[in-house]
Amino acid sequence: MEKYAGRHILLDMWGINSDLLTDINFITTTLRLAAIEANATILYDHYHHFGEGYGITGVLILAESHISIHTWPETDFAAVDIFLCGNCDPKDTLPVLMNHFKPKKHVTVQEYKRGEEQ
Amino acid sequence: MEKYAGRHILLDMWGINSDLLTDINFITTTLRLAAIEANATILYDHYHHFGEGYGITGVLILAESHISIHTWPETDFAAVDIFLCGNCDPKDTLPVLMNHFKPKKHVTVQEYKRGEEQ
Repeated sequence: MEKYAGRHILLDMWGINSDLLTDINFITTTLRLAAIEANATILYDHYHHFGEGYGITGVLILAESHISIHTWPETDFAAVDIFLCGNCDPKDTLPVLMNHFKPKKHVTVQEYKRGEEQ
Repeated sequence: MEKYAGRHILLDMWGINSDLLTDINFITTTLRLAAIEANATILYDHYHHFGEGYGITGVLILAESHISIHTWPETDFAAVDIFLCGNCDPKDTLPVLMNHFKPKKHVTVQEYKRGEEQ
């Protein structure tokens, strides 16, 4: 029996082509592919584009929690959160995210157990 | 000049009255109050209730990033994320969240800088 509510990955990626970071169709599709790859159930998504040349912020609401993204095209940076509970593993989303965003500089992946019993 | 994109708090709270954790009006209002307290600009919110007696999952999309919540009434637990960029400080949301959810067991607050330049 699991002793925590879910696993949460904070993924920071640098060196992404800035055109991708302002492309709402690309981002929407990539996050959906990531959720599917982790066998998560998509309930809803919503994205906000701050205007041409500016970043995108959005979230994919899942039966197993969420995937969120915030992009900074001016610094080729994206911050993605993958919080999954149940039998889904957020690590399963990483190959899809890396293959699509193709960060050319450093990437940080920090994983936390949320709601760990103490 | 800041050398990171934003600050992200992972807030895990135990020992919350389970009635609150299934009350979508309470949760919607509390997260909005928290955003206002941090001087964040609310763009959109969306919540999903998994059914009577079950948890709620949702997100408040902000001009400065997001606040998300996932509740587990069966274990009196809620996981809240507060990710704020710009001049907003996610710590400013904590008094509102604690005063409303009133967790009676332990609470963990972990803060991370997202997109820190390396």
